[in-house]
Amino acid sequence: MKRPTIKDIAAAAGLSKGAVSLALNGRPGVSESTRARVLDVASELGYRPSVTARALSSASADAVGLVLVRPPRALGDEAFFFQLIAGMQSEMSCALLLQVVASRDEEIALYERWFAEHRVDGVFLVDLLVSDPRVELMSSLGMPAVVVGGSGHHGSLASVWADDYAAMTSVVAYLKALGHRRIARVAGLPSLLHTVRRDEAFASSVVDGVVLYGDYTAESGAEATRALLGASLAPTAIVYDNDVMAVAGAEVAARLGVSVPEELSVVAWDDSVLCQHGRLTALSRDTFAFGGRAARALVAVMGGAVPTDVEDVLPELVVRGSSGVAPGVGRDAGGASVS
Amino acid sequence: MKRPTIKDIAAAAGLSKGAVSLALNGRPGVSESTRARVLDVASELGYRPSVTARALSSASADAVGLVLVRPPRALGDEAFFFQLIAGMQSEMSCALLLQVVASRDEEIALYERWFAEHRVDGVFLVDLLVSDPRVELMSSLGMPAVVVGGSGHHGSLASVWADDYAAMTSVVAYLKALGHRRIARVAGLPSLLHTVRRDEAFASSVVDGVVLYGDYTAESGAEATRALLGASLAPTAIVYDNDVMAVAGAEVAARLGVSVPEELSVVAWDDSVLCQHGRLTALSRDTFAFGGRAARALVAVMGGAVPTDVEDVLPELVVRGSSGVAPGVGRDAGGASVS
Repeated sequence: MKRPTIKDIAAAAGLSKGAVSLALNGRPGVSESTRARVLDVASELGYRPSVTARALSSASADAVGLVLVRPPRALGDEAFFFQLIAGMQSEMSCALLLQVVASRDEEIALYERWFAEHRVDGVFLVDLLVSDPRVELMSSLGMPAVVVGGSGHHGSLASVWADDYAAMTSVVAYLKALGHRRIARVAGLPSLLHTVRRDEAFASSVVDGVVLYGDYTAESGAEATRALLGASLAPTAIVYDNDVMAVAGAEVAARLGVSVPEELSVVAWDDSVLCQHGRLTALSRDTFAFGGRAARALVAVMGGAVPTDVEDVLPELVVRGSSGVAPGVGRDAGGASVS
Repeated sequence: MKRPTIKDIAAAAGLSKGAVSLALNGRPGVSESTRARVLDVASELGYRPSVTARALSSASADAVGLVLVRPPRALGDEAFFFQLIAGMQSEMSCALLLQVVASRDEEIALYERWFAEHRVDGVFLVDLLVSDPRVELMSSLGMPAVVVGGSGHHGSLASVWADDYAAMTSVVAYLKALGHRRIARVAGLPSLLHTVRRDEAFASSVVDGVVLYGDYTAESGAEATRALLGASLAPTAIVYDNDVMAVAGAEVAARLGVSVPEELSVVAWDDSVLCQHGRLTALSRDTFAFGGRAARALVAVMGGAVPTDVEDVLPELVVRGSSGVAPGVGRDAGGASVS
């Protein structure tokens, strides 16, 4: 038999899911008679007793959860996540329960267990999928959650996001102004929502665009760049979905004797110390502050606030040495149209 | 009244702390009558019931803890810790309970609470102090712990460490062979054990050595470098205790018109992508693998293994563009004595 959810209890009791959640969590906002009815229904339906017991205890787990689905070795190179985590910690007085797993299924099983065992008071959801089962899961569990980085609305969940569509549009406009026409994109995982948003923006603003997908590792960035530069009509500009792939791509270009930026412009997402020291033009945002904003949103939701969507500031393009006018285009023309 | 510890129970019951810990944790190794006696004594002394109850339940907390004492903003730039954490995760099937706090006192209070609430099955101790109260705390709590990065023996705790003395000695020998005599060191926090070990090795092998202390941030690396290069007898080589300070130092040199490596050699600890792309000569080790080794050691201790010290491989000096023969020394001489 399927384990009953808050939704089932709400249907059986003739109440909203929100009211059931408040009742089960011992929060103000429902009358004592309603609370008693919810507990009766929950008990009748066989709502897992340990969960009920833990949920009823007002004790905080004093931790929030973050699950990352990545190969650990590759994760260690991704400054983005550590900046995000450090930023989260700066705005939380509790611990972060962190686990790296191999698949989305493991991630979902982990949330269910953490919820059942009351190990966390809420979770951050990152790497949002186009159709993401975690959104419905959190709603049905009644688990406070904040979607980090997924643009738009996600059921009843709060989100903190940046506008990837507008950011990609601005990068392409910058490259076009420099005279680039053959622009390629080395994207991240195609299943991720922000990849799709960037794909959409890229497709609508580039005529002869080529998109190859990597997995954020240096290897995948290098491989995609080799493929692009080896084509008969090689691009004059490549936009990468993260810093690690972009740095690897610039190194491949150097090894192949393709000079950056004279013959190839390189633009990276996720500006980092890596981009700063590699002099790469990059989309920059304050990831630490972004993590802090996500933590504040989660703390608010755990405190009973109505979930809202918080749009982060648009990433800013920081122009460094890796981008310039397209080959064959006069510097004056390029310079004039950029300014 | 002070809360009774395992030590108090051991004294009252006339048993070793180990036996009491085994008894309270429901582990094999003590007879049932001894176990019963321990529980009686614990109860008489008012050993916190929740702790006893939780310790007696064989349920695993299914998490291990890591507390970092850093300003969160600076932490986000330290690739070392994220590589370490990623490596730990690669060898653990449980979650990591991570918290960043502002002081050692907060760190210690957190361990006591995590232990009392059975939030973790064990902890990693990093940034070991010269005389570190955490070592005795772990022993008295009977909490499985592994000291990460602190050389030598730490009470009854297991440790995973690298030989900082030998590593510093090898760096100085390398610089001396290149003709350097005025060598400076930009060290990390002077309260840390590994800083002291490196200080000792530095003092015993450099005659006119100058040591300035930073806090691993770019700002402190830049400030120390400005002070060193502004002195009447500026050093011809600087060894930095981490990558972030070294990169900032090299940038200060460039801004001051001091050319690297012609006029100044720069060597960094903690090789990283930052050093790789900044072409800095650096002491390199596989921090991800080091984290994995630490996790295996902790898993072993939690499984009842006798704590041991595991020495990590000696960091290897990777020579890149930031170091060379001292000013005024012929290239031949330098080259000959290095080989």
